[in-house]
Amino acid sequence: MEENEGADGQTQLFGLFAHPAGHSLSPLMHNTSFQHYHLNAKYLGFDLQPAQLASAIEGIRIFKFGGVNLSMPFKQQVIPLLDQITPRAKQLNSVNVITNHDGQLIGDSVDGEGFFYNLANQKIKVAGETMTLFGAGGAGLSIVQAAIDQHLKEIFIFKRHNQTFNQVAQQLKELAKNQLTQVNLIDYADEQMMIQAIQVSTIIVNSTNLGMDDYVNRMPAPPGVLQYLKPQQIVCDVIYAPLETKFLAYAKNQGCQTFNGLGMLIYQGALSFKKWTNQSMPIKTVQTAIQRQLQESRK
Amino acid sequence: MEENEGADGQTQLFGLFAHPAGHSLSPLMHNTSFQHYHLNAKYLGFDLQPAQLASAIEGIRIFKFGGVNLSMPFKQQVIPLLDQITPRAKQLNSVNVITNHDGQLIGDSVDGEGFFYNLANQKIKVAGETMTLFGAGGAGLSIVQAAIDQHLKEIFIFKRHNQTFNQVAQQLKELAKNQLTQVNLIDYADEQMMIQAIQVSTIIVNSTNLGMDDYVNRMPAPPGVLQYLKPQQIVCDVIYAPLETKFLAYAKNQGCQTFNGLGMLIYQGALSFKKWTNQSMPIKTVQTAIQRQLQESRK
Repeated sequence: MEENEGADGQTQLFGLFAHPAGHSLSPLMHNTSFQHYHLNAKYLGFDLQPAQLASAIEGIRIFKFGGVNLSMPFKQQVIPLLDQITPRAKQLNSVNVITNHDGQLIGDSVDGEGFFYNLANQKIKVAGETMTLFGAGGAGLSIVQAAIDQHLKEIFIFKRHNQTFNQVAQQLKELAKNQLTQVNLIDYADEQMMIQAIQVSTIIVNSTNLGMDDYVNRMPAPPGVLQYLKPQQIVCDVIYAPLETKFLAYAKNQGCQTFNGLGMLIYQGALSFKKWTNQSMPIKTVQTAIQRQLQESRK
Repeated sequence: MEENEGADGQTQLFGLFAHPAGHSLSPLMHNTSFQHYHLNAKYLGFDLQPAQLASAIEGIRIFKFGGVNLSMPFKQQVIPLLDQITPRAKQLNSVNVITNHDGQLIGDSVDGEGFFYNLANQKIKVAGETMTLFGAGGAGLSIVQAAIDQHLKEIFIFKRHNQTFNQVAQQLKELAKNQLTQVNLIDYADEQMMIQAIQVSTIIVNSTNLGMDDYVNRMPAPPGVLQYLKPQQIVCDVIYAPLETKFLAYAKNQGCQTFNGLGMLIYQGALSFKKWTNQSMPIKTVQTAIQRQLQESRK
């Protein structure tokens, strides 16, 4: 048995803590990468109940996991269980990767950074640019924070004016504090502002769930707004199932350059992998493995 | 990635809880068997401190391990942490395999049964026979218990007359209660009795650590006793590193049929594997994998 195929007494565990966890692409990404480097490690998915999270985090120490990723609904709940979190994880009140340093568990949030690494890899210039963002949930806020780190000029964020609106406004104010990036939170219902924001933006991003699951036939903005999308604009969706949302199809039809959520997913994985192994994820190999897997699951 | 090579979101964990755990052959045995049946499962070694055992057992439930094996020093300590143990595990006050039935953890002790499955596989008749056993530690007592189950006629057990002698005598009395097998506990220093026991036994077994590690040049009895070993006698060692102890080499030279501890190890694994998967371990494939591994580690 080769060390990269099987498992033995020295195999180190990594994993995803989520609910549900069964259909994540993360095990494939990381196991492909472990194999690439002949690392004796396995990444498994663990479907946990919220009441089990504390024991699972203790399990990281006990079973000497190298690290874990967290997904819904644990990104916030996990924070008091860790030894340390990075400033950006603290700002976002969200952790999606834990690294185990000899029993010291350190949490970080790398989704937003992954989003921009993917654009960098596609040779998209972002510094000094203006961005329109639909949605201000966990994924959206992590993109805003990373956008500030990447020195975007201005960000227009559209969010429903519900009970969390003021809280998000406060969070954004904290994120933008002492930063040069101009951050604007705007009521989702304000379509005139949407049109204006799109017209001055080079990058337009959907971070809502409009386009997946029960909302697969929805777009984050009505055609009356999206008709203002122009060729040369960069249009991104954080959704990767389906690979092409209705929004991306519409934007492509308008001549925009479109990116689905797979790149963001892969690069947040690459950032996790780097923390854990100090190695660079073999992106092309991982992309090939994911494509094969997605084709398999469509059969 | 094939399901038997890698790991994914559905991969089920199994493992060994021990200290140390790194050099066990159990991961190889079970992973080889999982691959044989294309089962999406991985067996890893976990090196635990005694203070971590309770959390690790909770981890079985949290991470939905299918089952685990226990080795030194946890076989006794684990008992109060389980939901249920089998009568034989209770009698031996020892658990070496846990099966997870939807969060209900059931402990059993299968070392002794493994010892006799190996002899059965070698076509050795044991029912009605007399056995001499050196040592009455955990391995020795599990062999005694299984020997009673296999209807041996009489067992002579040699044990140092130290502070545990009377306690072991009491345990043996419990094991033999209501059974037809005659069980005798004798002071290790009584070499005349040893000679007599060997002369009436068809099976002679070493369950002490004399022959391994710091005691690699020792035998469980002096040549003055072992010179009475005769051709046709079955001589077994629970030790498998080295594969041939000084004791087995001596017995082979006397013309005896000898068996090292690998067979017992493999069959206790097969009994664990059956509990967990309801499948028969592919013994020949496992033997081949172990031989290859032992040759590798000698390089």
